[in-house]
Parts: sequence; C-alpha cells; structure tokens
Amino acid sequence: MNTMMKAVVFAGPGRIEIREKRIPDVGPNDALIRITTTTICGTDIHILKGEYPVEPGLTIGHEPVGIIEKLGSAVTGYQEGQRVIAGAICPNFNSYAAQDGAPSQDGSYLVASGVCGCHGYRATAGWRFGNMIDGAQAEYLLVPDAQANLAPVPDGLTDEQVLMCPDIMSTGFKGAENANIRIGDTVAVFAQGPIGLCAAAGARLLGATTVIGVDGNAQRLAMSRSWGTDVVLNFHDCDVVDEIMRLTGGRGVDSAIEALGQQNTFESALRVLKPGGTLSSLGVYSSDLKIPISAFAAGLGDHRINTALCPGGKERMRRLMRVLESGRLDLGKMVTHRFTLDQITDAYDLFANQRDNVLKVAIRPAA
Amino acid sequence: MNTMMKAVVFAGPGRIEIREKRIPDVGPNDALIRITTTTICGTDIHILKGEYPVEPGLTIGHEPVGIIEKLGSAVTGYQEGQRVIAGAICPNFNSYAAQDGAPSQDGSYLVASGVCGCHGYRATAGWRFGNMIDGAQAEYLLVPDAQANLAPVPDGLTDEQVLMCPDIMSTGFKGAENANIRIGDTVAVFAQGPIGLCAAAGARLLGATTVIGVDGNAQRLAMSRSWGTDVVLNFHDCDVVDEIMRLTGGRGVDSAIEALGQQNTFESALRVLKPGGTLSSLGVYSSDLKIPISAFAAGLGDHRINTALCPGGKERMRRLMRVLESGRLDLGKMVTHRFTLDQITDAYDLFANQRDNVLKVAIRPAA
Amino acid sequence: MNTMMKAVVFAGPGRIEIREKRIPDVGPNDALIRITTTTICGTDIHILKGEYPVEPGLTIGHEPVGIIEKLGSAVTGYQEGQRVIAGAICPNFNSYAAQDGAPSQDGSYLVASGVCGCHGYRATAGWRFGNMIDGAQAEYLLVPDAQANLAPVPDGLTDEQVLMCPDIMSTGFKGAENANIRIGDTVAVFAQGPIGLCAAAGARLLGATTVIGVDGNAQRLAMSRSWGTDVVLNFHDCDVVDEIMRLTGGRGVDSAIEALGQQNTFESALRVLKPGGTLSSLGVYSSDLKIPISAFAAGLGDHRINTALCPGGKERMRRLMRVLESGRLDLGKMVTHRFTLDQITDAYDLFANQRDNVLKVAIRPAA
Amino acid sequence: MNTMMKAVVFAGPGRIEIREKRIPDVGPNDALIRITTTTICGTDIHILKGEYPVEPGLTIGHEPVGIIEKLGSAVTGYQEGQRVIAGAICPNFNSYAAQDGAPSQDGSYLVASGVCGCHGYRATAGWRFGNMIDGAQAEYLLVPDAQANLAPVPDGLTDEQVLMCPDIMSTGFKGAENANIRIGDTVAVFAQGPIGLCAAAGARLLGATTVIGVDGNAQRLAMSRSWGTDVVLNFHDCDVVDEIMRLTGGRGVDSAIEALGQQNTFESALRVLKPGGTLSSLGVYSSDLKIPISAFAAGLGDHRINTALCPGGKERMRRLMRVLESGRLDLGKMVTHRFTLDQITDAYDLFANQRDNVLKVAIRPAA
Repeated sequence: MNTMMKAVVFAGPGRIEIREKRIPDVGPNDALIRITTTTICGTDIHILKGEYPVEPGLTIGHEPVGIIEKLGSAVTGYQEGQRVIAGAICPNFNSYAAQDGAPSQDGSYLVASGVCGCHGYRATAGWRFGNMIDGAQAEYLLVPDAQANLAPVPDGLTDEQVLMCPDIMSTGFKGAENANIRIGDTVAVFAQGPIGLCAAAGARLLGATTVIGVDGNAQRLAMSRSWGTDVVLNFHDCDVVDEIMRLTGGRGVDSAIEALGQQNTFESALRVLKPGGTLSSLGVYSSDLKIPISAFAAGLGDHRINTALCPGGKERMRRLMRVLESGRLDLGKMVTHRFTLDQITDAYDLFANQRDNVLKVAIRPAA
Repeated sequence: MNTMMKAVVFAGPGRIEIREKRIPDVGPNDALIRITTTTICGTDIHILKGEYPVEPGLTIGHEPVGIIEKLGSAVTGYQEGQRVIAGAICPNFNSYAAQDGAPSQDGSYLVASGVCGCHGYRATAGWRFGNMIDGAQAEYLLVPDAQANLAPVPDGLTDEQVLMCPDIMSTGFKGAENANIRIGDTVAVFAQGPIGLCAAAGARLLGATTVIGVDGNAQRLAMSRSWGTDVVLNFHDCDVVDEIMRLTGGRGVDSAIEALGQQNTFESALRVLKPGGTLSSLGVYSSDLKIPISAFAAGLGDHRINTALCPGGKERMRRLMRVLESGRLDLGKMVTHRFTLDQITDAYDLFANQRDNVLKVAIRPAA
Repeated sequence: MNTMMKAVVFAGPGRIEIREKRIPDVGPNDALIRITTTTICGTDIHILKGEYPVEPGLTIGHEPVGIIEKLGSAVTGYQEGQRVIAGAICPNFNSYAAQDGAPSQDGSYLVASGVCGCHGYRATAGWRFGNMIDGAQAEYLLVPDAQANLAPVPDGLTDEQVLMCPDIMSTGFKGAENANIRIGDTVAVFAQGPIGLCAAAGARLLGATTVIGVDGNAQRLAMSRSWGTDVVLNFHDCDVVDEIMRLTGGRGVDSAIEALGQQNTFESALRVLKPGGTLSSLGVYSSDLKIPISAFAAGLGDHRINTALCPGGKERMRRLMRVLESGRLDLGKMVTHRFTLDQITDAYDLFANQRDNVLKVAIRPAA
Repeated sequence: MNTMMKAVVFAGPGRIEIREKRIPDVGPNDALIRITTTTICGTDIHILKGEYPVEPGLTIGHEPVGIIEKLGSAVTGYQEGQRVIAGAICPNFNSYAAQDGAPSQDGSYLVASGVCGCHGYRATAGWRFGNMIDGAQAEYLLVPDAQANLAPVPDGLTDEQVLMCPDIMSTGFKGAENANIRIGDTVAVFAQGPIGLCAAAGARLLGATTVIGVDGNAQRLAMSRSWGTDVVLNFHDCDVVDEIMRLTGGRGVDSAIEALGQQNTFESALRVLKPGGTLSSLGVYSSDLKIPISAFAAGLGDHRINTALCPGGKERMRRLMRVLESGRLDLGKMVTHRFTLDQITDAYDLFANQRDNVLKVAIRPAA
C-alpha cells in the first residue's frame, strides 16, 4: 500500500486544490476506507467561498462510499475489503450529547465543570469530516468511532444509489421526521433542491397525503412530481402563500418544511401553517431570522418549530439503505454528472454555478 | 331569579365600566353559572389599554369560579347548585381542531371549502370568555359547550385555591409540559410573574432537578424560592445568560421557558439553551420576534421552539385541582388583595400599576 | 317522509331478522341519516352467533354511508341532503375519557364518586351503533353527538370507496399507528383479512420498508401483495416464526401487528419481535391470553404491547378519506359482493361462511 | 499495585465463595476501578439459588462505586483517582440496538446475515457485570466501553447515597418513566421493595398526584409513606383491587407499575387500570404470564403494557445523581446493614432471608 494519497483541500477563499497528503494512521477505534465514490454538497460551496470557516489545508467533503482498507484493533464485526458508507455526521455515541438524545451535536469529548458537574456539548460537533478533520474528497478517509459509524452496503445497491445516504437523504428525511406527520396530513416543502426533494419524498413515505413542493426551477419541480409530490408550485407563477391557503380551504398545512435557509422561505412556511402545526427547519441560515408576529398568532398558536442537523451512525445508514433496497425510492437518479477526483475543480465549477441542470455530481477517485 | 345583572364591560380604550345587562338565556348545550369569585388577568390590562381589541360593550374576564344556576336541556351529569370552574379557554371539543389535537385553537364551527374538503381553524378561537363572548367579571356567566367545560370543585378546596386553575396555572403548567422535561433536567424560567411562577412549579413537578427562576422583582423571586425553585436570579444583580452558562458548566439548560412575551427574554432563553434543547414559549408577543443566528447554531442545533395557548376543558381542570388537593402546591397564596365587583375599578388600578406588591386579586360579585 | 323503516335486528342467537321500526326522533345534538350503503363486519357475525351479547331487538351494523335527512337544532355547519359517513365508534368528545386521550372508550356520561372526585370510563363505550343503540343496517340511522361525528364525503369518492373508513380502515390503520413504525422498519402483520390488509397498507404508508403479511388464504395473500406488501407468508407452507427470523437475519421484526384475536397469532407476533419492539394488537380475544416467558425476555426485553379500539370522529374520517382521495390506496376493491337490505340474510350467510372468496359485502337499503 | 484480588464467585447452586483472581488487564476502551462500595441485588439471590444461570466461577454483582485505578489508552476525559459509578447495565452505545433506541439490549457486537443485511440483537445483552463478564463484588472491576459508562460522582454525595443509582434507582425510575405519567395522574405501584419504592418516588417526581403503594410489609409501607407516597395499602388488610377502584371512584388508575414479577401482581395491575391506561412492568418473571380477558377489555381497551431493563450509561447516572444532589430524594436511607467483602456470605444470608428488616446492604471491600 502507498503511503501518500491525493486529497482536495480548502486552500483559502475561492480556492480548492488537489494535494498530496500522507495516508493517515489507524488508531484502535478508527477505520481507513478507500473512497470509491463521493460527491460535492452545497456546504462545500459555502466553504469554497469562504462563507463557512474551515482551516486552510483541511481536506473537504463529507459523503463517503468506499472499501474498508484497514480496521483499528478494537473494531470488530467488519472485514477489510467490505464496501461501506459512513454518515456525513459521525457522532461519538459514547458522548453525553448522544446518550442525551442529540448525537449529531457531539463528536468529541468535551469536559466542563460547574454546579451541574456535567460535560458541555458543542453544537454541530458531530460534523467532523471536512469540518474538524480531513474529509471524503480524497483517495482515503479515516473514519473515527468506526464501530458506530461504518455501515455495510448491501450487494444489490450501487455506489451511486447509496451516495445520497450520508447527507442529502438523511437530512431530508429528518426534515420529514421532525414535522410530526400523521396519516392524511398536508405538508408543504419550501425549496426542491436535493434536500427538499428528499424531504418531500420522506413526507410521502411517512403518510402525508398531500405533499406540496415549492421551487422556482421547473426541472426540479418536474423531478419532484415524478417522485410522487402531489402538487408542485412555481413561485414565479403564483403567490405561494395565497395558493397554499386556497388549496387547503383556508385551513393551512399541517406541517411545513423549510429546505433552503432563507428568511423568505422560513416566513412563508410559517404563514401557511395551521394553528397547532409544525415548522420543520432544515436550512442553514446565514443571518438572523425574523418571526412575523402576524404569522405566529402572537405566540398563542400552539405552533412548533423544530430544527435539525443530519443524523448519522450505522443504524441510520442501514435504514436509509433499506428504503432504497425496498424500491420505495431511487436516489441514484439524482446523479446528473460524473467526474474523476482529478477533474474536481470542474465539478466544483459546474455545481457552484448550477450549470447544465446539475442536481448532484459523482466523484470517483479511481476513474 | 332576577333578569338583570351587573357586568364589567370594556367601554373603550382606558375605560372599563360596570353596567346592567340581561342575564343570558340558556341554550341546550349551555350552563349559566353565578360567579362567586373571579380575578383580573394581565390580558385584561391589555384590553383595558386598547392594546388587544375586543368589541366595546363586551363583558371581560375569563377566570370563573361559581355555582351552577341553570343547565341546558342537553347537559347531563351535573346538578344546579354545584360549585364549578371552567377554563379561561372553553374549547369546542367537537371541532376539527380539537379532534386534531389543538382544542384551544377552535371554539366555533368554521366552515371552509377547497381541495382538502376540510374546515378551517381560527387561531386562539378557543378563547371565548371576554374575547368573543361575554366574560366572567359579572354576576352571571353563560358557559358554552358546558358538557365539556364545567368542572366540579372538590369540597376540600376554597374558591381562592382554585381561582388560578382556569388560566394562570393551566398556562404555566402547559409551559412546563411543552418543555420536554425529563428527570434530572435543568430548566430556566424567564419572568416570575403569576404565570412564570406556575411554570417553575410545573417544571419541578415534572422532574426537573435544577429549576432556575429569573426576574427583576425580589419579592417574586422570594416567593419562587419558597415554592421550591432551586436557584433564583435577579437580572438587576447579574448577567443572566452568563450566570446560567456558568451554573451549568457551559452546557446550557435542557429547557428554557419564556413567560413574559418580550424580545429580550425570548432571546436570553435561546442563548442559554443546549443543543438539542427546547424553548417553551408562553408569552403574548406584541411585535415581531428576532432569532439571533448566533444563538441558533445557524439552524443546525436540533432546537425546538414550542408555543402554547392555555388548555381548557373539564379534564384539564380536574387534573389541576388534583395537584392542589394533593398538597403538592398551594396557589391560594397568590391572592394578595380582595375586592367586590363594585370596587373593580380600584382593583384594575392596583393590578395595572402593580402597586402594593400585588400578585393576584380576588373579585367577589356578592361581597 | 315515512315514519317507519326497515331495520336488521338481532333476534336471538343464530337469528337476525328484518323488522319494521319507527324512524327515530332527532334531539338537539343528533342527526338522522338515510343509509345508502353499509356492510357486515366480523363483529356482527359474533353477535349473530350469540358470542358477543347485545340486547335482542337491537338494530345491528356500525358502518354507515348515507345522506343527512334531518339535523338536530344545535348541529351547525352541515346541510340536509349532504352525503356523510360516521365512524363505527361515535365518541362523545365532551367526555372525560376523550379529553384524557381515549375517545373510543367513552360514549356516554358516566358519573362516579370517590376520593378522586372524577368520573368513570366504560371500556369500549364509544362503540354505540349496533352495540348500545340502534345501528346502521337499516334504512335510517340516528347519529348521536352529530357535530363531532358526521364527516362529509368528498364528491370524487363513491359510497363503496369510503365504506371501509368507519371501521376496517380506521382499525387497521390504528394498528399500524400503534406499532411505533419508523422509516426503514420491518413489520409483520398476522392475518390478512380486511383489517390485517388495512394494517399492512397502513404500515407501508407510515414508512415500513419490509412489510410481511401472514395468512393461510392464498387469495388474501395475493391481494396483500398487490397492495404493496413486500413479503407474504402462507402458514400452510412454512413455519412462520422460523421464516421471519430467517428473513430478518435473526434480528426479529421492529413491530408485529396482531389482526385476528387468537392465542397462536398473538404468541407468534411476540416470538418474532426484536428486543425493544412493539406488538400492536387489534384482535378481539375471546379467552385469556398467555404470554410465553421465553418470548418475553422474562419481562426485561423493553417490549411494548399496545391494544386499540377503532378510532372515530369526523377528523379521523376526513383523514382516512384523504388517503383514498390522494390515490394512495383504493379500498373500493375490497367489496366483492353486493346485496339489497332485503337480501341481508343471504349476505350474512355468505360472509359468515366465507364462501365464494368474499372479502367484504356492500348492502344497499334502496336497491 | 497487586496483581491478585479477592472476588465473590458463583460456585454452583447455593454456593458463593470468595476467591483469589488475577486483576484483569485493561484494553484500549476499558477502565479498571477499585471498588469502594457495592451491594447485593435480588437478582444475585436468584443466581445464588441457581434460578438464573451464570457460569460457575464468574464474579457476581453489578452495582459498583469505586475509584479509577487505570484507564484504557483510548479513554479520555477522566483521571485516575477519580470517584465514579457505572450502571448495572453497561451498554455498548456503538451497537445497532443502542442506535435503534434500545441500549440495554446490546452490549456486544453480534453479527448476523439475512435479507435485511442487519445485525441481530441479544435481549438483555447490555447486562454484562456478573452475568456475562466478571462483576462488582470484588476488589477490582473492569468496566468495558468505559468512555460511555463511567460516571463521575459529585463531591457532595457519599458512596452510600449513590449506591442505588446503578440498578435500583435506574430501574425503579424507568418504571415510572415507562408509565406515561402526566400531571394529576393516579399511579399504583405493586410491591414496595427497593425497586418499587424507587418507582413510587419516580412517579411522584414525574407529576403523579395520587401515588398508591401496595405491599404486605408494614415497615416498607411506612418507608414509602415517608417518601411521599400518598396512599399505602397492605394486602393483608384489604382487597387491593377493590380498594383502588373505590379510591378512584370506579375510574381505575392512569398507570400501574408492577415491581415484583409475579402473576398476581401483574394481574392486579391490569385489573385496576383504566381504559387507555398503561401497565409499566419491571418484574423479572419466572413463568408464563396470563392476561385475563376480563381485565383486558377483550383487547379493545386502548391499554399499553411496557416492559423495561434498567437503563445504563454515564448520562443516565449523571441525571440520577442530580436527583440526589438536588435533595429531591435521599436514597442513602435504603442502606440498613453494612459488611466487609470478607463478610459477604453473612450479607447474602441476611439479604436472601430478608432478616432484621433488611432493605439494602452496603459491602465495602476495604473495610
């Protein structure tokens, strides 16, 4: 085995570069995987643009599909050579946060003191790949807490089919799971990018009988429709809030899912929500949010607002792959373009500028 | 029986008056109760000031304790002469909203049409007394949907002991119930007025082991302490956010309850909240709310924000009275001043200006 | 309008008869509906055989589809002439039981005394039609608590399509709802009669990705398969417990739904359940049940056993009809045979003896 | 440091012996703790009598309080010399079962194959100490998955105060948590041994306002009363089922907790349960259980039966210790007798025969 590998690093605002790095050593609870397929996420574009701070020199990317190259001495139940994925978020399930119900919020061992004698959490600290440690856009990836995070891929599924499990599908489905959906519900999903598409599919999977997808991109709305979204609304063609209130006979939706991260989608989601309804928020917001009092019943509407970070862990990945295996949904269709690792700057350029109707790209280190 | 009664009406901004009104007729599902004790709520002060619009001439007040004077022909299981209370919110439990899990949000029969073929809700429409129909600051009160809303008072409890059940206790406890409290939790309650005091007591009752009460009024903090609040913080004496983070060793609280309805308390509640924690909001906000992105983990903190309107109904009232009967809490202590109905303008003056350390007043129509 | 109508009454064990009865008077909270379609349920067969006691002379049947003939004076928001259904269970939503979360368990106003000062429930008392009051196998049906229980039928749905909503679909779906299903779950449904078929469809609708249907009737298994059940097992062809453990790799199922009401199905459901799993029981048992300790981890398996009575109410019916309207499921296919009310003894004979591959029959009073 | 230690082993039915064993080696994820205080559990008595099978030669005991002697190389955030406890159940939080919500059900890495491609659970496999690996009745204890399971003891709490946290308190409180308790509930707890006492205290802590404790031992009932149980019933003095139905005015209890593990307590718990109520079962049953159909509404009562195994993990322990620190409950009072490790056969004799009003014993290896 080589000792060096290629890796895509953040070199400073506006610059990503392919560099040679040492293949990392494998500690007792780690696993080294050889990446066979990975992808670029909207968050990577934020990093590239310098909008989300990571340390220069860090390998980016957090959506790995690969082959176990080497297992740590304390990791059992896996074989080298086995095909696996790991979640974008790699929780430390031994942490206080995980045992307290919020595994995505802690990936490290934080110690604190004080009256409660307890340990502090760090928000979003479960997101390690390409954020706190080297990530997946490389030839090799070191997976921490491998016993908890390596998920074997069933033989019947291709790399591209499972490529959305680590982040897009897990996040989108969590948006649906956080929306308190019951059989017969009407659910509006604001934005139909990759995550919003998965949120809409998840809402349908959980029993919503009127799923409404909102976007301004006709192609994405068409894909949404083809996956079973009942009604699609193009905000270029109608006043979305008025139209949803009309469609629901003035009742409003049972749940609204925000899948973009902007004030206007957040606000529209609140405006179409029935009293007693749930706003499930997935967006990564970059500025303060406003809750208009007129959409909030002055705080007396029995409303719920739930936020989420993408869930990880091998059981989560197992369940998402079961959805694919069962034929309920084919996420492989999301891959519109393919690149080698060497071509990744082209891939970033295409994806960042949303050219050629790109939805998701597949990156293959070994072309 | 007389045909006329005295009632306290909203006569226009800044003016309440005692007027003579006809004692109302009793429909098949109604009950007429003779008020023996009622009180004034912070909401009534908003109405008096013209900040919350009600129709001039409406009898105000929504916290009734009284005696059944007459039962509608379809109401069974009660006796005339029985002592009862009814919730401030009188839901129509036959409504779509109630069957859908939000009884406080519908008190009337609203019909709508549209794709879903369903009926619309009206936010907060469960609040009828002193808002949509004549209220409790009168000699007699007509209770709609009496079968659902009349709650017999156990013999062992006085009028003043149960006087907080219809609104203050039900609201404050709902704040605690909405906070997802588990055994061993740390819960901060922002504001220790009557509702905040009940929220703190409710948090303790649900298993929180560190309840932190925040206010600027030393007397209220002392009462809070005497009811079992573990830590009280006076915002005149410390930076509350810093102090709570210090007390929790940097972890933050599991739940924060907002019991005032202002931007600064809402914001502080969010700033002390752990990732994965719940903000339970009780306040009636009078302007748009801001969610500072720095306190919100950019939307990725697995946070929950839950709002509520006071729950009503006879089963709710029965449970609250059980808390009092069991000796877990003595809310009679909240009554600091007593007035007859004829003296009610004095009572409003005292309460509106928070003079003489008033917490709650008791109003007795028959002095 | 006539004053007399035909009604199917229980005349004693083994005997049902068509009799002339007075069309009932309409009280303030009632509605009279003219039945256009109804059906026979397995419970009716138990009544016919004398296994479930009802008073001789009672009109049986509890699955009404019809037209509002007359509304009580206090019922608003409906029109005479409107097409409606009502649930098999007609809860009194004003009751303590309903406000306490168990509407199906109380349909009347029961008063009790005692230390708690509360009112007693009566198990299953929400089931009134054909059990405590005259039922739906008649030309006319009096619906009590009509404001809560009348559900308008959307124009796009036929009588036969909504005929399963009042009981079969509501019960089967409740079995799925009670099973704590999450995305990616494996769920086994024991028995694939009408209720088990709906439970399997409900499990799929809620996100189960491996639904396993078990029965001994090949035709029912084929229908189950055609509705999307992933795996069907005929107990004549395999040891069902062994086969399910093999299919799940020794893990067991996440949830098992019992849809027959016998010891052997209950026991098999428990034997295939993973530690931490849920057994959702729908069956009406006629003798004591045994929990084999070997299938119960000595009481240490974090197991859940949930039972249910069919939910009713207009909001429940609205949601079930939404499932049908959305095209997620077509329950009209369940009707295999059609009869007039005059032919009902033939219908009972066919259905009781499960002849001619009958699944459900439709009965039309006005042929 | 020595290489040998004293340990209490199961030597065969009816025989426990103190033996010399090697102090175990410490792997990367382990911790070695020097036991300062431990106790004997009812389960140990079952093991002693040969009723619960463990391998001869195994060190028994599962309730450790001690000092960290040595930490594994991969364990961080602790110091040698720190005082800690570990739960009786030491889950592997990396396991599928733990990530799936049932940590107590898996403590090892089980691999299986099959259609689902998943890994099997082993019921109760989270219970390792004194069951699958050497336990706590010894001078030293090896704690597996130490990062997840070591819980630092706050300075203000003594060994005896926290001695109940690992098992008795965690189990009893889980019984209350599993009972779906809401404010104002009536909860009956069947048996008031150490676990039942904790279940009753837990029910009160969660908002039950009428807690009823049932036992035949007057001393235990007196202790229960002193901890705040509202009503105690001695089954020698009354028909418990009749008395509870009388106390609740015929309504039945909202929740019943079974804390013994016998048919008669299980059955009584079911007989006093309201329709819609929850039976939370804690007992370890040694034979098949019968559900009397007459107490089960034929399966139509919307009943819930929940079982549990004691929860473990450092966050659970932290929360339980917070209850003690907050002064809500003083479990140190449960210790009625004290022994050295050398005297342990006397301790077993006393405890097994329930002599001298023993409730719990404290065992100190270093007297």
